[in-house]
Amino acid sequence: MAYDEENILLMTPGPVSFHPRVYRAMSRVEYHHRTPEYRKTFAECISMMKEVMQTKNDVFIFAGSGTSAMEAAIANCVSNGDKVLNLINGKFSERWKEITETFGGKSIPLEVEWGKAIKPEMVGEALDRNPDVKFVTLCHNETSTAVLNPGQEIAKVVREHDKILIVDGITSVGGDYVYPDEWGFDILITGSQKCLGCPPGLGMIMVGPRAWDIIDKRERIPSYYLNIPSYKKEFEKGSDTPYTSSIPLVYGLHESLAMIIEEGYENRVKRHRRMAKAVREGTKALGFQLLAEKGHESNTLTAIKYPKEVEDGVFRKTMRGYGVLIAGGQAHLKGKIFRVAHMNLTAEREILLTLAITELSLRELGFKCGKGVGVSAAEEVFLR
Amino acid sequence: MAYDEENILLMTPGPVSFHPRVYRAMSRVEYHHRTPEYRKTFAECISMMKEVMQTKNDVFIFAGSGTSAMEAAIANCVSNGDKVLNLINGKFSERWKEITETFGGKSIPLEVEWGKAIKPEMVGEALDRNPDVKFVTLCHNETSTAVLNPGQEIAKVVREHDKILIVDGITSVGGDYVYPDEWGFDILITGSQKCLGCPPGLGMIMVGPRAWDIIDKRERIPSYYLNIPSYKKEFEKGSDTPYTSSIPLVYGLHESLAMIIEEGYENRVKRHRRMAKAVREGTKALGFQLLAEKGHESNTLTAIKYPKEVEDGVFRKTMRGYGVLIAGGQAHLKGKIFRVAHMNLTAEREILLTLAITELSLRELGFKCGKGVGVSAAEEVFLR
Repeated sequence: MAYDEENILLMTPGPVSFHPRVYRAMSRVEYHHRTPEYRKTFAECISMMKEVMQTKNDVFIFAGSGTSAMEAAIANCVSNGDKVLNLINGKFSERWKEITETFGGKSIPLEVEWGKAIKPEMVGEALDRNPDVKFVTLCHNETSTAVLNPGQEIAKVVREHDKILIVDGITSVGGDYVYPDEWGFDILITGSQKCLGCPPGLGMIMVGPRAWDIIDKRERIPSYYLNIPSYKKEFEKGSDTPYTSSIPLVYGLHESLAMIIEEGYENRVKRHRRMAKAVREGTKALGFQLLAEKGHESNTLTAIKYPKEVEDGVFRKTMRGYGVLIAGGQAHLKGKIFRVAHMNLTAEREILLTLAITELSLRELGFKCGKGVGVSAAEEVFLR
Repeated sequence: MAYDEENILLMTPGPVSFHPRVYRAMSRVEYHHRTPEYRKTFAECISMMKEVMQTKNDVFIFAGSGTSAMEAAIANCVSNGDKVLNLINGKFSERWKEITETFGGKSIPLEVEWGKAIKPEMVGEALDRNPDVKFVTLCHNETSTAVLNPGQEIAKVVREHDKILIVDGITSVGGDYVYPDEWGFDILITGSQKCLGCPPGLGMIMVGPRAWDIIDKRERIPSYYLNIPSYKKEFEKGSDTPYTSSIPLVYGLHESLAMIIEEGYENRVKRHRRMAKAVREGTKALGFQLLAEKGHESNTLTAIKYPKEVEDGVFRKTMRGYGVLIAGGQAHLKGKIFRVAHMNLTAEREILLTLAITELSLRELGFKCGKGVGVSAAEEVFLR
């Protein structure tokens, strides 16, 4: 029952367990990044990243976490005093506000209760009330609450108001439908360690033409390390990066993106959606309630409310002891929810295993739940 | 003779070839970073990093390249309008100026010819002429020219003038003597892929008490991703980082730092210095001249001037074909010099091999040089 760091199933919303092919790619002998061979690999990565992101816009990869890509978005676009409508319904959407303020933007927060979705009409009203807003930030899939915000519908309203939309797709890109070009996302950022199935350490950013219009006109971009025009220049010059690439992570990403493309976009999204449904049905059958507003549940992770009899720390430790790592709540949701991710490779066996271990742990802790009901509810989904 | 990406000796000034133990550490099954086990590993990393950096000050690790740590130094310390004396004798010391200006600092450049060292008396004079300077930036070991600037002596002058000294130790820390506490460096940054023997993707920063005095008094730090007080807070709270750690790279660093400590500081520095001497003697015996000013040659890499008969691209391609990768010059030194690094694991066999392949390549290209003279000159150094 002791926690075995090397034999654990990561059902956490990043980092996720990933494929041996990715390990093998990463453990290739160290290369130098200023060689034609590495540049070719890097260029392929960018091109596969565009395919997975469903975009024809520019995409850049930073040596940094997903937050580095968020910082790049704001630092390159938002000038001192620019008004930014920050759509907030959780910890990660709140981060956009913090970064906006760090770079001197004037944040107009539109906050809804954590667990609820942002609705397009709220965004429309806020933009009507604040016609001088220049940017809107959205967290497409709020990882802290497992709420999928209606990205397409929100983008439509933002475009109608002629604002620039900056989207965090850290836990949607590669797992759920995201069509930035079709929907009208101007900036879309993501990270390597979620649905893209890699270790953490790479941040990606897509920059569309309307965002370029803003960036190109700036006199001074207040970041050197994350200066997007530098990345563009070096990539165009020779598939290069201005600063040293995280070489092994780029090799891992290259392999993981190839696997994502092998699976196929539709297949991958449908698998994620089927797994999500099974987790929702399974946990509800065990007697739990979901945090996310009905109709807005995330397809890459699920947030589940604790009944008052179950104590967060003890429960997750019990799960861990059985070799399954899940996540707790964040900020004021700490102790109130747990989160199960179903990203990247997660398939029927991981879902059934997780539900079975959940049931075992609950029963061990004296919680009354129907026997085998979680697993069988999930099976129903799979057999449908 | 074709370049084999996986069977190449990296004699480049980062990334460097590294030990199989580092690969093995990196390829451990993916962990979650918010677990007690990971926090313990991360805390050990910080503590070993302090030992290798010879400091009792705070040290933080970023998911980012060495340049991210440079950006962190300036963004956290330099306020709009602050005067910064940028000591410049190469491409990387010039980067401090660029970052200073990105963050609104007023750069006072003190430039000397690339290949020459910055002398403490020049710094003293510049500070006398500019009493309102607040910060001084120094690149301890200039990787673009293979010049080791006299860090200790410069620090003494800077401290006498009561300025804050920010030092880039990217190619000195872990390979040559660097005593930031004793010498009086206020900030010291480095990166994972040079003398520390890891892949690229981690930047480190040491923050001393005089730098903290500045940082603690700032009203707004214009970076979110690289906000040092956030890193301090999370580390003190639970050996944690504010944003997701580059997990496999941290495991690699942990192993590499352990190996550095096993070798011993003095042994390691002396080995680097002996290898450097052998490269210098060997290349001079082959008829080359060094770029670095006499008495200021770097001990972790050597920059060698091309005689007019040898063409950079052809020469390096020939070396590559024999499985040895070396670096060319940068900026206006492109085509005029080549650079051979002797970092991390480099020992007698790599030095002799590199000199022998250099001789073979030169002779193949029709350059007249004494037979076996490079290797034998290096052997003399080793046998002394």
